[in-house]
Amino acid sequence: MFELAESDPELSKEEAGPLEDKLRTALLKAQYARLKQQNCALLIVIAGIDGAGKGATVGMLNEWMDARHVRTLAFNPPSELEQGRPWLWRYWQNLPAKGKTGIVFGSWYRPLLQEAARKKPRQKRLLAQSRAIREFENTLAQNGVQIVKLWYHLSRQAQGDRTEKLLSDPDTAWQVRPEDLKVKKKFSRLRDAGALAISLTHETHAPWAVIPAADTQMREISTGQVVLAALRKRRIAPMQPITQADTAIVAQPTPTLASLDYSARLTDDEYDKLLPDWQGRLARLVQHKKFAETPVVLVFEGQDAAGKGGTIRRITHALDPRQFRAIPIAAPSVEELTRPYLWRFWRDLPAPGHISIFDRSWYGRVLVERVEKYASETEWQRAYEEINQFESQLLTSGAVVLKFWLAVTKEEQLERFREREVSPFKSFKITQEDWRNRKQWDAYVKAANDMLQHTSTQACPWHVLPSNDKRHARVAVLQQVVKALENALGLD
Amino acid sequence: MFELAESDPELSKEEAGPLEDKLRTALLKAQYARLKQQNCALLIVIAGIDGAGKGATVGMLNEWMDARHVRTLAFNPPSELEQGRPWLWRYWQNLPAKGKTGIVFGSWYRPLLQEAARKKPRQKRLLAQSRAIREFENTLAQNGVQIVKLWYHLSRQAQGDRTEKLLSDPDTAWQVRPEDLKVKKKFSRLRDAGALAISLTHETHAPWAVIPAADTQMREISTGQVVLAALRKRRIAPMQPITQADTAIVAQPTPTLASLDYSARLTDDEYDKLLPDWQGRLARLVQHKKFAETPVVLVFEGQDAAGKGGTIRRITHALDPRQFRAIPIAAPSVEELTRPYLWRFWRDLPAPGHISIFDRSWYGRVLVERVEKYASETEWQRAYEEINQFESQLLTSGAVVLKFWLAVTKEEQLERFREREVSPFKSFKITQEDWRNRKQWDAYVKAANDMLQHTSTQACPWHVLPSNDKRHARVAVLQQVVKALENALGLD
Repeated sequence: MFELAESDPELSKEEAGPLEDKLRTALLKAQYARLKQQNCALLIVIAGIDGAGKGATVGMLNEWMDARHVRTLAFNPPSELEQGRPWLWRYWQNLPAKGKTGIVFGSWYRPLLQEAARKKPRQKRLLAQSRAIREFENTLAQNGVQIVKLWYHLSRQAQGDRTEKLLSDPDTAWQVRPEDLKVKKKFSRLRDAGALAISLTHETHAPWAVIPAADTQMREISTGQVVLAALRKRRIAPMQPITQADTAIVAQPTPTLASLDYSARLTDDEYDKLLPDWQGRLARLVQHKKFAETPVVLVFEGQDAAGKGGTIRRITHALDPRQFRAIPIAAPSVEELTRPYLWRFWRDLPAPGHISIFDRSWYGRVLVERVEKYASETEWQRAYEEINQFESQLLTSGAVVLKFWLAVTKEEQLERFREREVSPFKSFKITQEDWRNRKQWDAYVKAANDMLQHTSTQACPWHVLPSNDKRHARVAVLQQVVKALENALGLD
Repeated sequence: MFELAESDPELSKEEAGPLEDKLRTALLKAQYARLKQQNCALLIVIAGIDGAGKGATVGMLNEWMDARHVRTLAFNPPSELEQGRPWLWRYWQNLPAKGKTGIVFGSWYRPLLQEAARKKPRQKRLLAQSRAIREFENTLAQNGVQIVKLWYHLSRQAQGDRTEKLLSDPDTAWQVRPEDLKVKKKFSRLRDAGALAISLTHETHAPWAVIPAADTQMREISTGQVVLAALRKRRIAPMQPITQADTAIVAQPTPTLASLDYSARLTDDEYDKLLPDWQGRLARLVQHKKFAETPVVLVFEGQDAAGKGGTIRRITHALDPRQFRAIPIAAPSVEELTRPYLWRFWRDLPAPGHISIFDRSWYGRVLVERVEKYASETEWQRAYEEINQFESQLLTSGAVVLKFWLAVTKEEQLERFREREVSPFKSFKITQEDWRNRKQWDAYVKAANDMLQHTSTQACPWHVLPSNDKRHARVAVLQQVVKALENALGLD
């Protein structure tokens, strides 16, 4: 795939001049059209052989485009803070808003390229890494972030010549970075690594383009042309979600909401004994030194008035306020609407030794957004897979993830709504919206049952708890949290 | 100031019951009124003697108020990432939006309290720390963030009794933290430290309230009452900016824009030699290992078409894309409008070894916002002092801060506007707004001259550069950056 680039094609200044003028005008026009439409964001990934002018390209793109709407996203090796999160965390944090452009330097390809450049690349890792990349790019592409990837390439001879030429002039010698000098020895290995990475991750919705980089004019014009074509692309082609046999999600048998036993109850005496018992166990667990290495994600979903808030408070009562964050999820903000729907949840992921408690969550995509038709059927159908991948990334990073569905019957909900209405300081919890949602009870139950079937995985099953008796549900949740933590910390 | 609290007043459950009902209803009502008005945010700072029920208070406030609009901001000792930034950075990052409430745990009082609790507190540090706190709270209070501070207090006897009582029951023993046990020995020192910190930082716009904490009902009702009073307060009292003789800003003599020599020029030959020379020096500097410890902030202001963009590109050409971020400042977003105007700039501060390049900046407050009347006269007048304090905090944290004003004459601007209009790929840089601004030329010049006089401090002077010749200005900026860095790294 590098034949053309390694022939080191050139473009004279005379040829390039008029091309450049036209290109720059067209680039600006396309950029503004996008800004106006706010249809999707564009990520330009810069990769390739060291010393092929990648850094200069960043400068050039900022000059040729309107730099006010372009953001360079340059990543160093991960910081301590970043190492405690899933490895894709920092890329999620920095996604540009719809309409905007991001140039990615030091991208999510680094680990794959490093593995591919080993003397003997480990097959398993290559496949896992490239699969993770495809899932990530797929989720982005499906949710309003277009991706184009540029590989800067030139012949071994040209790379050496270019480096030497820069070095020979004191005015340009500083442009040569230490890594540029090392290329000569390992050129063929780097080239093969690039070819392998490209072949594993070249997709219609996130294509690679090889840019001939030996000649400055050729490099600039080619870059401009590829970026222009990407900017002009209005719609991202729809595609099938990636599911490979070897890592396919095995759904767990999960009860439907109708099949639960809603009669489970605790007496006053049982509750007064069990609650502090389990709270104490939880409190001791989170003070354990092993806990400092573990991030924990707790997800609470359930019908309105199912008791999520009260249950969460019983948990946080056992925690130091510095250890947890309770994150209530409401309708997305303006800023959040300009990013993929999972973006805001990535922002709130816990560091090791911390607990993020989501009061409603990313499951809104397949619940309220489905029922209220904020998401199209294609979108919420696809979300099951995207969510499973997201949670799988959390687990892979070492997080403990627990999902609870608190289930009440329609009659019990009615009673609680009425109770809230007459209580002077609970009436805020009941609004016209709650009554409207209640009219859609069956639609929500259907959505919940579908969700339970599609996202209860072996690695991350749903805990569906009948909650007609609040106290029973609270103790049951505490118990599950404690057991999962004991298990994760190896203290069971 | 602790007499009442140390008498450990009590409230029986019978007395507290009806009070609590009324309070909770009133709290919710006041909270909703605020959310509706979106007038200002509320920060509730929680401090006090260990073992006085501070943690329990966080839980209580989340239960009594509508937790969906309350965020607990709990801070551990600063992380590696946070240590590289000014110490107030993390508090700025986490400011709640207007209408919302934040409960701060582990606040900006920690260093002051630690110093005050030393056997012999160092006077100079106490004054510097309390001054920094007053400046911070003042800036917040003036810009839509109300602050109320609660000190939880009880007698030494009651503290010991409470801790022992909790310990004696296995159901509650886990509520006792290691630090609660240590209080006994150093009670009087902690109390005196609290009294000192309070007396140094009690201000009308950020008042302290002492909460009697020995008795649960008393603690809860008192907390509720103080928070309610704060929520009900509609307007924050206006105040004078803090300026003390010992640290007053000494303004530097700064040239007015009219007094500059606009004839400075470079020939082609000079430029072709000097530009790569200085770029090379800059490139070598930022590759120096000492640079890895230094955060750098570059600020570019100037008339429209003064050449800011081109100058910035000449600088970034010498930098690795992973070392810098160019931050174009446009009108604030919806999210940014709900925070103090300095908030968005705090977010973009560089880590050590990184350069943040602001293309326009916080000076917009006293330039465009003044001229276009987005800020009231009180607001922009006050901003000089707020900005000086902000930059002083940057410098104190070890950052190198350089501010450039690129100055062109009215005639030169006209020529550049016309040039832009006819260039196919520069016309995007010129809009109706630029022509409108040009009509206000004199108002902008006046605002700029006032700004130069008020914010050119000894520690952080303005570099005002005549830029009728772009090339002269570019080289001059590079030169200043290099010299300032060499000086900061001790390489000159």
